[in-house]
Amino acid sequence: MAKKPEEKVKVMLLGGLNEIGKNMTLIEYKDQMIIIDCGIGFPDDDMLGIDLVIPDFTYVESNADKLLGVFITHGHEDHIGAVPYLLKTLNVPVFATRLAIGILQNKLMEHLLDYTPELVDVEAGDTVKVGDFQVEFIRVNHSIADACCLAVKTPVGTILHTGDFKLDLTPIDGDVMDLHRLAEIGKKGVLLMLCESTNVERPGYTPSERTVGQALDTIFAQNKDKRLVIATFSSNVHRVQQIIDKSARYGRKVVITGRSMMNIVTAASELGYMNVPEGLIVDIGEMKRYNPEQITIICTGSQGEPMSALYRMAYGEHDRVTLGNKDLVVISAHPIPGNEKLVDNIINELYRRGIAIYREENSDVHVSGHACREEIKLMHALVKPKFFMPIHGECKHLCSHRDLAVEMGMSPQNVFVSDIGKVLELGSKTAAWGGTVPAGRVLIDGKGVGDVGSIVLRDRKHLGEDGIIVIVAVLNDFDRSLGSVDIVTRGFVYVKESEELMTEMKEVAWQSLGDALGQGITDPAQLKGKLRDDVNHFIYNKTKRRPMVLPVIITV
Amino acid sequence: MAKKPEEKVKVMLLGGLNEIGKNMTLIEYKDQMIIIDCGIGFPDDDMLGIDLVIPDFTYVESNADKLLGVFITHGHEDHIGAVPYLLKTLNVPVFATRLAIGILQNKLMEHLLDYTPELVDVEAGDTVKVGDFQVEFIRVNHSIADACCLAVKTPVGTILHTGDFKLDLTPIDGDVMDLHRLAEIGKKGVLLMLCESTNVERPGYTPSERTVGQALDTIFAQNKDKRLVIATFSSNVHRVQQIIDKSARYGRKVVITGRSMMNIVTAASELGYMNVPEGLIVDIGEMKRYNPEQITIICTGSQGEPMSALYRMAYGEHDRVTLGNKDLVVISAHPIPGNEKLVDNIINELYRRGIAIYREENSDVHVSGHACREEIKLMHALVKPKFFMPIHGECKHLCSHRDLAVEMGMSPQNVFVSDIGKVLELGSKTAAWGGTVPAGRVLIDGKGVGDVGSIVLRDRKHLGEDGIIVIVAVLNDFDRSLGSVDIVTRGFVYVKESEELMTEMKEVAWQSLGDALGQGITDPAQLKGKLRDDVNHFIYNKTKRRPMVLPVIITV
Repeated sequence: MAKKPEEKVKVMLLGGLNEIGKNMTLIEYKDQMIIIDCGIGFPDDDMLGIDLVIPDFTYVESNADKLLGVFITHGHEDHIGAVPYLLKTLNVPVFATRLAIGILQNKLMEHLLDYTPELVDVEAGDTVKVGDFQVEFIRVNHSIADACCLAVKTPVGTILHTGDFKLDLTPIDGDVMDLHRLAEIGKKGVLLMLCESTNVERPGYTPSERTVGQALDTIFAQNKDKRLVIATFSSNVHRVQQIIDKSARYGRKVVITGRSMMNIVTAASELGYMNVPEGLIVDIGEMKRYNPEQITIICTGSQGEPMSALYRMAYGEHDRVTLGNKDLVVISAHPIPGNEKLVDNIINELYRRGIAIYREENSDVHVSGHACREEIKLMHALVKPKFFMPIHGECKHLCSHRDLAVEMGMSPQNVFVSDIGKVLELGSKTAAWGGTVPAGRVLIDGKGVGDVGSIVLRDRKHLGEDGIIVIVAVLNDFDRSLGSVDIVTRGFVYVKESEELMTEMKEVAWQSLGDALGQGITDPAQLKGKLRDDVNHFIYNKTKRRPMVLPVIITV
Repeated sequence: MAKKPEEKVKVMLLGGLNEIGKNMTLIEYKDQMIIIDCGIGFPDDDMLGIDLVIPDFTYVESNADKLLGVFITHGHEDHIGAVPYLLKTLNVPVFATRLAIGILQNKLMEHLLDYTPELVDVEAGDTVKVGDFQVEFIRVNHSIADACCLAVKTPVGTILHTGDFKLDLTPIDGDVMDLHRLAEIGKKGVLLMLCESTNVERPGYTPSERTVGQALDTIFAQNKDKRLVIATFSSNVHRVQQIIDKSARYGRKVVITGRSMMNIVTAASELGYMNVPEGLIVDIGEMKRYNPEQITIICTGSQGEPMSALYRMAYGEHDRVTLGNKDLVVISAHPIPGNEKLVDNIINELYRRGIAIYREENSDVHVSGHACREEIKLMHALVKPKFFMPIHGECKHLCSHRDLAVEMGMSPQNVFVSDIGKVLELGSKTAAWGGTVPAGRVLIDGKGVGDVGSIVLRDRKHLGEDGIIVIVAVLNDFDRSLGSVDIVTRGFVYVKESEELMTEMKEVAWQSLGDALGQGITDPAQLKGKLRDDVNHFIYNKTKRRPMVLPVIITV
């Protein structure tokens, strides 16, 4: 009897902008598939005007009947932010720990679905069975509470997806990464590990969240005469908890400002993730009843976001908080790539106004939520996978992570540096590339999902760098003569100081069309092409610039 | 007899974009003034389409008869790049060490002056007398050869301007920062020190340039089977010299590619700053006569510049160099702020192509050219100025530098954190703010100097983020009826997939104008305003976007 060919399990990264594999991973076995995480990315510098980036759902949608569930590692935007977009087209259950579910529910209120989605909360240690998959949620530490990695047991073998993680041996909520369970699973045998790579180029270990508490304690102790304004990520529940604890200890009331900070503190308290002493939090309107030194303000804006609470305070635009030399600002965060300048602008503005600032450059007020090199090695040592795919990083991080695995004794043939849309096919003892599926990124601009593509972005870049010259020419239908030429520019030069240039340009346009009409050219496309070429040429010679030239020809 | 009021010496920072005081400083005494450095800045993210930024010369030009000379600390772009623009309007002697003069001469060939400028080369240790000023050039170490700080002796007191510096006790060319002379000058008494602040937030000392040589030696020794491609700043003559030395030692020929790299190696060799063994450098066309492992390629592109030699190699667009697994790339540089992404893109692309890379994250292939905290303290300790003005840094750096000075025992009243255009007035024992002068930044876009201002930039940003909708309406002059409405968009949505939206928008425009005309409105400005409002409103409701709406009304 001929041996039946083994069924393969397929793993593909469907999300991630610069950070490959960050936002969405898909595992497929026979006619069944599950998704791990479904998050948003932030637009690149060259994606002008784009608000968000979500994964391309083409492959998922065309296999909708196979999809059994979405499994979420933790509640950060880049892991859950695209769930509402997915649920708009597919009704599929979502499994996550309670905090992530809470955040997701908040988020879904802004997206109107025409059905009630199935959101299932699980706890670390739980295993969810869907089809032939068994998905186990295992505790890890991270910069948001209740983060898990996922062990997906398939008929072919176990796949471990670390999600985002660090090892915190003295975490705020008492739950250390579940080293025992990871060791057990590793011992039983893991076919493939997908492991995050964010800090793979940083040596050593990431310090415990508790070290931030020590730094905060010093700041509270040394600044008893000042109001404290502390900005941090709203989702960093443990950080916020520590600020609340220190405020209680040093006899301060806490004011919360910024919409997302208020939402999270409310949700996290209700769900039991935070412990706020009765009467400690006061409304911002009550603040004037206290002396400045009796107040801690916890606010949004640690990423320099324009119009966030800290931004408005720094620029003197906050309607309730005016900063002065009785204030001390603490920025308890690290700018995510791309936000450095925004954060620096706020810091410089605060210094300009003479306000003292603690930030990660001059104090230990922040620690990363991601594992450094030695912690990543520990994960490899515990899990001991047969095959390994580095995820969550730019290509350079994934390659450094590959080198780390090889350094630890793994065969280079067993390491698969993937890319969005590549398929890895796994047998119980084999792994090999298996083609690609449609994948990429869908740009969200306002209400539009995917209606801004490369041509629109190219035009935006062109418009943004050089501006536009609109030339409206009126032709008389009767005798094909030129009736008028009008020129309007935006973003090109300051017109009042460039009258001569504008006059000459109009002459060039008039001449160009006159010549063409004289040669008997009447096709609007041809006329426009000639006009564009002639004006472009004139402008470049005069200014060495290449604004977009947009001819409009009207026949009357 | 009433005592005659003391003449004051004035110090003002006239250049600097984010880095306050970086590009140009002016010292004025009675009817005499001198400039220290005259460099360019690079545009901010929000200066769309801008090539360069130069200081505003208004104050200098309106006091042209007072100007005695321009003194250059070293030959980097941000210290000499704006000299050609200054010399276009003012004929003034420029004093600098030979390498800076050589680079400046090259630069002036691209800018046609209608006279021969007076470029005077001086040596470290020289003193130049102009009017009542005596300007002494004092050796410092930096990432370009022949850098100096300047001690300006005025009748009121001595002003020391550090320029950019580090302390390198084992420099490549044997010239250590002139500690003795700085100590002497400090002992005699310095009225004011202006000291750079770039690395003031970095603890400790900057390593010697020689440590890069050690890292390069290891790379050369361990990669004898590969072609080496090394990208660095062309102006870092000592770095290039070290790469040449290692190549000679390990029996490799050197190929130079990239225009600025070829210019600098030629100029530096001619001026005696570099020592290249006869026959070591071969033309890129000769490269095929050697095995890959016999070649070192030194190239531009360490900042990720599009179309630089390294960029073209990384993307497979270089006509002479095709990279493969027999190549090893070394990026011997640190991205200057704003270039991080460009450099990362090249690194990721090289990894994607399977090419090994050494860079500062995984090897000691770069050191900074700026003093860290302890070296800055040493400068303070040597110079012991009465008054101090931190320069070359964002506001946060200047404030940290102020704190450093205060930590070292200086009175906070004696530290002046300045800003562009602020004037500090110094007597022999006093210092106080003395108003402001016109100062700022002039944007260079193509040939245009200063013709792009805030309105143009605001329009470019708007166009870049949301695109443009041009609405051309034709009115019949005879009966004020609406003849036609045409709509063209760029950078808004992909029109072919948004036909319905375009049709509806045309209806809205037609309706808007029809209503207005029906109400007897004929003023084009009013018509355009109404049209803009109505279309804006429609588009925002439909798409949550705000493209620029540009109405053009033609009457025929």
